[in-house]
This record gives sequence, structure tokens and C-alpha cells, in this order.
Amino acid sequence: MNGSPVSYTLREIVDLYGGELVGDPQIRVSRVATLENAGAGAIAFLANPRYLRQLADTKAAAVIVAPDSRAATDTARIVHDNPYLYFARVSALLRPARQARPGIHPSASVASDAAVDPSAEIGAHCSIAGGVRVGAGTIVGPGTHLADDVQIGRECRLHAGVTIYSDCTLGDRVTVHSGAVIGADGFGIAFDEDHWVKVPQIGRVRIGDDVEIGANTTIDRGAIDDTVIEEGVKLDNQIQIAHNVRIGAHTAIAACTGIAGSSQVGRYCRIGGAVGIAGHVSICDRVEISGHTSITKSIDQPGVYSGVYPFEPNRQWRRNAAQVRHLAEFARRIAALEQGLAELTRSRS
Amino acid sequence: MNGSPVSYTLREIVDLYGGELVGDPQIRVSRVATLENAGAGAIAFLANPRYLRQLADTKAAAVIVAPDSRAATDTARIVHDNPYLYFARVSALLRPARQARPGIHPSASVASDAAVDPSAEIGAHCSIAGGVRVGAGTIVGPGTHLADDVQIGRECRLHAGVTIYSDCTLGDRVTVHSGAVIGADGFGIAFDEDHWVKVPQIGRVRIGDDVEIGANTTIDRGAIDDTVIEEGVKLDNQIQIAHNVRIGAHTAIAACTGIAGSSQVGRYCRIGGAVGIAGHVSICDRVEISGHTSITKSIDQPGVYSGVYPFEPNRQWRRNAAQVRHLAEFARRIAALEQGLAELTRSRS
Amino acid sequence: MNGSPVSYTLREIVDLYGGELVGDPQIRVSRVATLENAGAGAIAFLANPRYLRQLADTKAAAVIVAPDSRAATDTARIVHDNPYLYFARVSALLRPARQARPGIHPSASVASDAAVDPSAEIGAHCSIAGGVRVGAGTIVGPGTHLADDVQIGRECRLHAGVTIYSDCTLGDRVTVHSGAVIGADGFGIAFDEDHWVKVPQIGRVRIGDDVEIGANTTIDRGAIDDTVIEEGVKLDNQIQIAHNVRIGAHTAIAACTGIAGSSQVGRYCRIGGAVGIAGHVSICDRVEISGHTSITKSIDQPGVYSGVYPFEPNRQWRRNAAQVRHLAEFARRIAALEQGLAELTRSRS
Repeated sequence: MNGSPVSYTLREIVDLYGGELVGDPQIRVSRVATLENAGAGAIAFLANPRYLRQLADTKAAAVIVAPDSRAATDTARIVHDNPYLYFARVSALLRPARQARPGIHPSASVASDAAVDPSAEIGAHCSIAGGVRVGAGTIVGPGTHLADDVQIGRECRLHAGVTIYSDCTLGDRVTVHSGAVIGADGFGIAFDEDHWVKVPQIGRVRIGDDVEIGANTTIDRGAIDDTVIEEGVKLDNQIQIAHNVRIGAHTAIAACTGIAGSSQVGRYCRIGGAVGIAGHVSICDRVEISGHTSITKSIDQPGVYSGVYPFEPNRQWRRNAAQVRHLAEFARRIAALEQGLAELTRSRS
Repeated sequence: MNGSPVSYTLREIVDLYGGELVGDPQIRVSRVATLENAGAGAIAFLANPRYLRQLADTKAAAVIVAPDSRAATDTARIVHDNPYLYFARVSALLRPARQARPGIHPSASVASDAAVDPSAEIGAHCSIAGGVRVGAGTIVGPGTHLADDVQIGRECRLHAGVTIYSDCTLGDRVTVHSGAVIGADGFGIAFDEDHWVKVPQIGRVRIGDDVEIGANTTIDRGAIDDTVIEEGVKLDNQIQIAHNVRIGAHTAIAACTGIAGSSQVGRYCRIGGAVGIAGHVSICDRVEISGHTSITKSIDQPGVYSGVYPFEPNRQWRRNAAQVRHLAEFARRIAALEQGLAELTRSRS
Repeated sequence: MNGSPVSYTLREIVDLYGGELVGDPQIRVSRVATLENAGAGAIAFLANPRYLRQLADTKAAAVIVAPDSRAATDTARIVHDNPYLYFARVSALLRPARQARPGIHPSASVASDAAVDPSAEIGAHCSIAGGVRVGAGTIVGPGTHLADDVQIGRECRLHAGVTIYSDCTLGDRVTVHSGAVIGADGFGIAFDEDHWVKVPQIGRVRIGDDVEIGANTTIDRGAIDDTVIEEGVKLDNQIQIAHNVRIGAHTAIAACTGIAGSSQVGRYCRIGGAVGIAGHVSICDRVEISGHTSITKSIDQPGVYSGVYPFEPNRQWRRNAAQVRHLAEFARRIAALEQGLAELTRSRS
């Protein structure tokens, strides 16, 4: 999955990505590691102060730290405002993503009128239907199915076992993990006396550049118009995006979250895991939602929103949860008490 | 995925499906569209009054409206009590589902004793095991796996990458979307001192006629007896149905909902997304459950049920949620206050 | 999916697995059944007292019961402390799991330097990449993809359509159900001014012996170090395990649960369905968590924990839920009332 090992001196790394170098610039690193498990030749990072003690004990050849940890170690170090981001860059430098091995595996089934760029790689047992276009440098993993007229941009990475239904489009540099299903029918049904009638789902899914889609995530095609995932969106595993949802650019969504039909999520939002967003709501830019929260109406102010029932030992939970059904009654009783007390107090004076 | 384009006059449509025609009966439509994006040759609909303003502005050639919107537009229109249902019919008329292209793809692997109807279509890289039966006109998408003795009815549509374990049965006109897994082992384990022992799962999954199953939905086989999905049930994506569950006819369930073992859901229920239904509970017919609700015990009265913790800005949520753990104490303190106030009031009089 | 039918006398069964035999030891059983649906030749069990009435009516040839139900039936019976466990053993005896049919299906694509044990079975349309090792007696179902250097132990069962990313390792006797994805990238992203930068995910997934993994479950590879599932863990369907999680031995987790990055779950825990566990928390051994609970911080005491919002008819729920946002205010008002009442009481005496 990864390229061959490479190594760089700290000087070379700082020349590439900036930061202040403290220590021997000729120290050479060939891999990244955690502070805890780093050994010779490894570079680690400290982004979270809770691991400060591990910084003292690390056997890493070098570390990446924030300015406030500059003096907390004697190890050779690169000081940078955002050690995690810096680490991401160094890690990609040391383990470059593998390039496409151009060609179509002999076991793949490719329609004669599909346009697969000669520099693209099509894995074993893929099926590529008529009218499909696959861009330069794109890797399509084994067992992936692209239905009629799917358009895939350049330098995408579709892992094994991805399914994309007809007419859907992906931009450039899109990553899709295994088991993801893009473009299945939205859940559109109309009730007719005693049974459901299917509403044909004829929209598409359009996915922008630099999007990443996690394993077993599903994104349904639009009912009439399209479902849209804008550029730079990052979706974790097992997310469900219903028909006609629009996710704004650079929004990140953690695993197991579901977004119901026709809802709109703004740009630069950060949505936790297992969140549920109801249908037909609109969430503005730069909203953060805590994991396991249920969003039942629109949000028009940036900020952090939460709605999680607190857990406790079962016996206490039972006692407290039993009172939830009396909250409206509590409100009335408290108001009555306040009135009663006020009357008594008045009558006394 | 869809048939070739066709067109119909409004007169022809009303002759087929009824409704009152207002405007030129010779207007010809060839596709459906939203009010907002409709252009020449398109027919749109208004089902939700919130989009009434879009009706005024639409460029659609014709619209489908309810009687109360009859006068709200000058566009040629079909007036019908259920515009959404009517639209579903017209959409299916204009974009008929594609028919099977009879035959077995040369890359498919089909056991010699499988019985595939000559009118069925088996896609690339499928594996069809011994004893499987596939009915007339059924389409089996690429990369789909049917294990021993699976029975598939007529005119079903299995999309790419579906997996059906041995012995499971599907009725006629069943649609299964990509990534769905039907008949995997139920979660049956018995504890033996210091480890778990697997309980063999030897029941099947039986699926009735006209069922639709969403992408990446999983339906486990029964432990001993069968898991049953009755006719006309509609399941959205990423739903989990555990062993020995029974879902009554014409019930619709939205995405990400999980139903634990041996529970029974009645007929004509409507269950929202991300609902959890505990094991061994029974839900009667015509129950509606709001999204994200946890159903922990049986329901024996039709109606709408909910249990969602309200969300709010994080700071307020923190303050309020901290008090949830004091609700039982609140109940006691309110009762004590009522008693104290009553005593004071008595002593005063 | 199962071996050919076999039969055993009750005497033979008791000789194998112990328990007290009451009734004719020569009675012969060839299959298991539920009390309700059992017929001639079937053996059933009673583990749950709520089904006691079914015991009286059963047509089973024999039953397995706990000591306290010894006298509740005249049917031939095996009395044992743990009827469910006993039943699991008898069921596996009567329907032994099928053995591997050694060999590689001609349609499978196996790298020349993959090491597949001659006794293993590789199904149709599999792709087995370079450096992969598959142990003796292991069954790899059709359409399964094993990426570079994956290591699979002995007597494993990978069902159809499993995907395992590069470098991941499975112990012996591991079962993986269809659609499971092991080793996809963890959700590691670093924010850079106006877009996200991917953090390469270079750890592996390591899975111990005797683990079972449900359909469409996803287990992400570690960011740097590994994600670890210890021996004997049982995972149901549609579970999400994020990067660098560690699940302790013999823990069982029900469907739809998600565990966020770097969290640790102890040994012998029992976690319900649709539970959410936040990132970077630690749960000690022998913790039980009710379904649909959100675990937002560490647990260091064994016991049962819950946090589920109670459901009720929608109208009541609306009224009560509206007060959740006033709980902090309730706390203040109750305290003020207590103070006010105390002052009045004092002034009166």
C-alpha cells in the first residue's frame, strides 16, 4: 500500500516545511512513530499536553513540538505552531501514497465504450460499465463496480469493493474506502391506500475535489435534483447521507452519523459521531455538533451544539430517568410552590 | 440504469392515472423536475405548501397540484388529491425501470445445479452457488454472491455487490441495494466460564414480495426459526435487523435504525432513522416512532412515540444535563417543599 | 453452508457434554428446534422462564432444561445448569460447520508470492495480493479482497465480500462476515488554515484468535501504532471501531455501536447495541453498557451503566422534553424555594 522507504535529514525537512530546528540538522529520520514506541530513525510529535511525560522518555531520533514545549526535551526537535499538521506532512513525505500501476487487470470487465485513462489502474474483478470515464493516475481497487456513465476524476483512489451507481460524478483526488456505496436510490416512497409506491430516484450524486469517503458509508442519489458533497469534505465510516443533502466545502463528519433527506450542512462544520440530522433542516457554516446529538431543527448561528443524555450507573439512571416523564409536572409544581410561598410571605408582612 | 426517453401528452397521462386536467391537453412532457429547476418539457409537482412560492415562478411545462392549489398557478396542471403519489406514477412512466438483459455474463461463476431462468440477467463476477434459483426477469448486479440454495423470485433487482447467505428466500419484485447482507449469522453466543461459545445460527431469512432493502443494510438469519420481512416492507440504508425479528407488511423504516433479536414490528408502522428497538419487544400495527428514539419496551397502542434529548448550545446543554442526574432528588425536594408549605399554610390559618 | 445430517442418542450426547438424563437414553435426535416448532427427532431447550408454557406443549423428542424446570415436563430431558450453552454444543454437534474444500477457484486472482496453505479454500473472484499468508483449513469466501501482506491464521472463515487492507493480521479460528472492512484508514485529518490535510494512517489492525466480526462492521487501522482486537472478542454487525482502539479479550459488543479513536475497552465487557463511546476514554474490565447509551468519559468501576432518554407518546414527550432546557433553572428555583421556606419557618417560630 505504501512506497519504498526513504529518509530525510531534519535540515531537509525544515527546508521543505519550515519550523525552527533545535539540535543536529544532520539527524536522519526514515519513519514516524508515537513518542511511546519510537526508536532509532523515528520522528515523533507532541500535540496534546497530556502526553508531555512521554516526551521526556521518548527514544525518538527527533520530535515535532509546539513553541511552549520547546524546552521540555533535549531530543532534536522541530518547533512549529501546529505539530500535528507538521507531522501529517512529514508522515506523507516518508510514506508517500502509492502511485497507480497503469493498466487494466485481465480479470476486470470493462465496457468497450468506457474511457479509462492509460495511466489509471483498474484492479481485478472490477466491472466498468458503458460511458464510464476514469481520469489520469486514478487507482480503482479490486472488485469495484462503476455503473453506466460514472465520471471519476484524476488521481482518485477507490479502494477494493466500492460501488458507484450510474451517472454519479467524482472530482479529482477523491478517496473512497471499501464498502462505500455512492448513488443508491434515496428512500422515496408514496403511500397509496394500503401499500407504498416507489418514487423513482433520478438525480445523481456529485462529489467535489479532495473529498474522502469512509468505509461502508452510503450517499444516496437525489430524488430529482442531485445530492452534493462539496470540495474538501471528509466523511468517516458508516455515514449515511440521504437524497438531496448538500454538505458544504471542508466540513468533516465523524463515523455513524446520518443526515436525512434534503438537509443542508454548511461549510467548515465539524460533526461528531453518531449524530442524527433530521430531514429538511439547514445548518449554517462553522457549526460544531457533539457526538450522539440529534439535530431536529435548523441552526443559523455558528457555535457548538450538544444534546446527549448523561450516563450513570444503571440503578441511578433508572431512578432519574423515571422522573423525565414528570418534567412538565415539575414545572407546574415549582411554579405553584413559588406562588404559594409568595402569598405566605406577603400575608406575613 | 434507465430506459430510453419517452414523452406523453397531459391528456394521455390523465387517461392513465386520472385527475383533473386544467390547461392544454396536448402539452407534451418527457421528464420530471423540481418546480425550481424545471424547464421546457418537464412536469413538476407541489406536495408541500412551503414550496408554494416556487409554483408561481416555475418554468415547468405542467405541474401536479392538490385541489387547494388549483388556482395558485396559470401553468397547465393536473389536479389530484395526492400529488406526490401521482408524481411517482408519472416519473415511473417517463423513466421506466430497465428490463433484464437475459443471460449470464461470461465472468460470472454459476454452479451447474443452479436454476437461473433464461430471462434473468446475471452480471459480471457474480457467484451463484449450488441449488440457487433465480426467477424470470430478475437482474442480479455485478459482484453479487448467492450462497447455496438461495431462492430469488421473479422481476427482482439485486444491485451490484449484494451478498445473500445460504437458504434465504426472496419473493417477487424485491429490490436489494448494494452492500446489503442478507442471512449472516445472528449474534448468538453463550458464556462458558471464561469465554464465549458460538450458538449455530440455522434459521433463514424469508423476504416477501415487493420489499425494498437499502444499501449496506444487514438482515441476520434466525437462530433456529426464521427472520421474516413481510410483503411490501421498505427498508432504507444501513439498517440492522437481528435474528428472529419479524417486520409486518408495509412497514417503512428509515436509515440507520437497529432492531435487536426476536422483536416484532407490526404492519403499517413508520419508523424513523437511527431508532433503536431492544430485543424481545413487540410493537403493534400502525405505530410511528420518531428518529433517534430508543424503544426499550413493547408498544400495544397505535400512535406516535418519541424519546429524543433536545439539543442546545453546548454551554446551556452542559448546565442542564448536569441536573439530569439530580432528577430523583428534585422529585423528593419538590415533594418536601409542598409538604413544608402546606404545613406552614395550615399553621398560619 | 452446513454438513450432512447426523443423529445422536441422548445417551451419546450426555456422554459427550455431561448433564443429567431423565427419560429414555435411546431417544435419537437429528436437529435442534424451538420448543414451539419442534417435531419428531428434534431437541429443544428452555433457558428463559417466560417460555415455560411452551415447554408443556412442545412436541420435541427431547429438551434441555435447568434444574428448576426438571419437573416441569414429561418429555425426555437433559438437566444442566446452563441450558443455552448446552444447546449451543448440541446444535454444533448436529450441524457441524462445513470444512474447507481445499483449492483455489480458477476465477480467483492470487499473487505469485502469496502463501495459501494447500488445505485452504479460496472462493470465486477473490483477489489475494502479494505477501498474503492464508493458514491451514481457512475458508475465504467469494469476492473477498486481501491486500498486500495480510496474514490470516488457521481455520478462519471469511464469508463472501470481506475486505482486508494491507498488513492486517488475523489469528486462528477468526470468523468475518460479509461486507466487513478491516484496516481502512482511520479518520485522521489536520486543519491547515482553510482545508484539511490527511494524516497518513500507517498502523495495522491486529485481531486475536477466536474473534467473530459481524456483517458490514468496520475496524480502522491505527494512525501510527495498531488497532487491536484481543482474543475471543465477539462483534456484531455494523459496528465501527476507530483507529487505535483496543478491545480487551472476550468482550462482546452488539450491533451498530461505534467506538471513537484511541479508546480502550476492557476484558469481559458487554456492550449493548447503538452505544457510542467517545474518543480517548478508558473502560475497565467487566463493564456492561445498556444499548443506545453515550459514554463520554472513562469508567473505572465494573458494573452496569446506562443513559437512555425514555420514550413516551409524542404529545407527552414534547411537553416534558421542553422542560429539559430548564433543568438548571429548576435547580436554582428549588434551592430558592427551600431557602424561602426555611426563612418563613424560622421567622414563624
